[in-house]
Amino acid sequence: MIQQDMMQLGKRRSTIRELFEFGRQRKEAVGADKVFDFSLGNPSVPAPQAVEQAIRELLEEKDPVSLHGYTSAQGDAGVRRIIAENLKARYGVPCDPDLIYMTCGAAASLTISLHAVAGEGDEVAVLTPYFPEYRVFVEKAGAKLVEVPCGAGFGLDLEALDRAVTEKTAAVIVNSPNNPTGVVLKPEEISALAALLSEKEAAFGHPVYLISDEPYRELIYGGKRTALPAQVYPDTITCYSYSKALSLPGERIGYIAVSPKARDAGDLYAAVCGAGRALGFVCAPALFQYVAGKCDGVLPDLAAYDENRRLLTEGLREIGYETASPDGAFYLFVKAPDGNAPAFSERAKKYEILLVPGDDFGGPGWARLAYCVKKETIVNALPAFRALYESYGE
Amino acid sequence: MIQQDMMQLGKRRSTIRELFEFGRQRKEAVGADKVFDFSLGNPSVPAPQAVEQAIRELLEEKDPVSLHGYTSAQGDAGVRRIIAENLKARYGVPCDPDLIYMTCGAAASLTISLHAVAGEGDEVAVLTPYFPEYRVFVEKAGAKLVEVPCGAGFGLDLEALDRAVTEKTAAVIVNSPNNPTGVVLKPEEISALAALLSEKEAAFGHPVYLISDEPYRELIYGGKRTALPAQVYPDTITCYSYSKALSLPGERIGYIAVSPKARDAGDLYAAVCGAGRALGFVCAPALFQYVAGKCDGVLPDLAAYDENRRLLTEGLREIGYETASPDGAFYLFVKAPDGNAPAFSERAKKYEILLVPGDDFGGPGWARLAYCVKKETIVNALPAFRALYESYGE
Repeated sequence: MIQQDMMQLGKRRSTIRELFEFGRQRKEAVGADKVFDFSLGNPSVPAPQAVEQAIRELLEEKDPVSLHGYTSAQGDAGVRRIIAENLKARYGVPCDPDLIYMTCGAAASLTISLHAVAGEGDEVAVLTPYFPEYRVFVEKAGAKLVEVPCGAGFGLDLEALDRAVTEKTAAVIVNSPNNPTGVVLKPEEISALAALLSEKEAAFGHPVYLISDEPYRELIYGGKRTALPAQVYPDTITCYSYSKALSLPGERIGYIAVSPKARDAGDLYAAVCGAGRALGFVCAPALFQYVAGKCDGVLPDLAAYDENRRLLTEGLREIGYETASPDGAFYLFVKAPDGNAPAFSERAKKYEILLVPGDDFGGPGWARLAYCVKKETIVNALPAFRALYESYGE
Repeated sequence: MIQQDMMQLGKRRSTIRELFEFGRQRKEAVGADKVFDFSLGNPSVPAPQAVEQAIRELLEEKDPVSLHGYTSAQGDAGVRRIIAENLKARYGVPCDPDLIYMTCGAAASLTISLHAVAGEGDEVAVLTPYFPEYRVFVEKAGAKLVEVPCGAGFGLDLEALDRAVTEKTAAVIVNSPNNPTGVVLKPEEISALAALLSEKEAAFGHPVYLISDEPYRELIYGGKRTALPAQVYPDTITCYSYSKALSLPGERIGYIAVSPKARDAGDLYAAVCGAGRALGFVCAPALFQYVAGKCDGVLPDLAAYDENRRLLTEGLREIGYETASPDGAFYLFVKAPDGNAPAFSERAKKYEILLVPGDDFGGPGWARLAYCVKKETIVNALPAFRALYESYGE
């Protein structure tokens, strides 16, 4: 008895993957340098040299039985201590190594957290626009996803959030820097969010967890300040992945940090461990746990992403495009000239430009450009973007 | 709203993990060589040299962006081709690389397969004794686990299986070589099983999937023949992990192979892909996918396990213990002298022997010894086993 919902999910490739696949075919047909592929958030900056060095050191230092053996289900205790100390020192976040659970990357961090705190009859509120897999993860946990419209400039709309959070709300997912807009929530927005959720908790008499999805935490430009929910809101579950900061998306390594200030933090952490176990995550990949321990806090070459960001944003605005103001991650949200993003994405293909319509992200009318590409791709793409824009005036 | 079932699961450490933790404390107290720890199936034989060599080659050969980047969700196409070719050549199993899905190890292979074919109202039949996490995985998928009593010598009881498989049965889990008994099903047992399930399918008009959990497939001793369900039963989902054969349990790398002979194999495979996506497995760890591609078919030092097996089995039988006949894996099932296995495990602790009662495995009255230990551990443990046995006569 094949489960129909799972089968449909397996057959319906995500829009992003579809575009990526189309791009692969075009590159074979016309040459890789002729296709301007902004579809996938696969870091283009190589993993920092520290990663390779860490792998080589580990092969020397550790005997293979302990290097490749099981760690405890929560993750290696030494690695968890390093992570907790760094989180405290760097961001002033309350943190306890015994409330950290190492995971197989951001998606695992999210599914495990959701299965720990949400089930049938619950709602999970998500600030739009948002990474479309959130819906898949929330629904698999048995809960209902509730979209919260965003405010001006893709910031927080506090009134919309106030309306969206009800007695049924088990959790709110926040993602700053944001995929797909690149927008970073301001410290005052995070504080206002925390104050609102605290009020809701008091009114409902039950926790409303804030699940903070932070894979882009370190990718912030222009001296913008990083504000993290765990700094100000007790019932926070921080979901992290090393994929973007260390350019390791294929290695599936990240963690969940339950705030020690959370109500019943021990029970909440136990539920995280239980969900990890029930979903089939025995422990996070061992070698890359140790690599994370050695490289936690190492940053990628932000200068390259920052230059891409400026080139693309300025180039597109000069042509006439309207864009969001991306202060983080490596995504730029661009408005479709006539407001129809799927048609914009289709039309762009004729100019060998691949961009993802924002409709699946809960951001209709806009399209996502992932600028984690080579600089030349952007330089060479700008004339094509101009031709694309001008085609709307014809 | 902390999910109570997940919290209970997180708090209730498995009996095996409890014992392992107790052992760690005893080793600190009295010295590692004074504790005879047979609790955990953590391979003691180091990963074959080929594994380290493969990692070093990959660091040289591949640029970091592609080495650590996302693979397709199903896994690297080249690696899947190698696996399919080896499965066909080595075991005569029908196989298609486009029906292979790389996973984060055996547990992930099982949860993904179960969520693909079973849900609310379904039953999953499991031959006893069985790895206790099967229950956790089956119940998380929403289905009911039905225990099928085993036959003589922990073999197949065809009549018991006949009674257990009903219209509600979505799948049967088979695990040969078996954890916890080490028993290997004979080719004629696999054939009888296949014939029975084919009859059931015809009678019910729907597939009854055979989920074959094969992490110990290569660990077979004494020239026994390997018989695999996929050789004879079309609706087979093979779940594999490299943990045991390559001594990599911490790295979480394995695969699911859907038989090309399965009814609606494409739909079944899509459901596997969908379940993997919904549970938060984006792709299997990239570096170890490529390691698996390079090392698929490399065997561990079976001679060391085989010597342990003989030493322990002969030593215990000479003392007077009754044991199963272990032809595979690295587990020996031993009968509690008075038939009370939890009390046997407790009493053994006084002799610094750690063994897991079989009750959680659906094998009450027996205890599991994991003999993936150093040879000296067995040699030094035998006098303690004798004292333990004699304590029952006092």
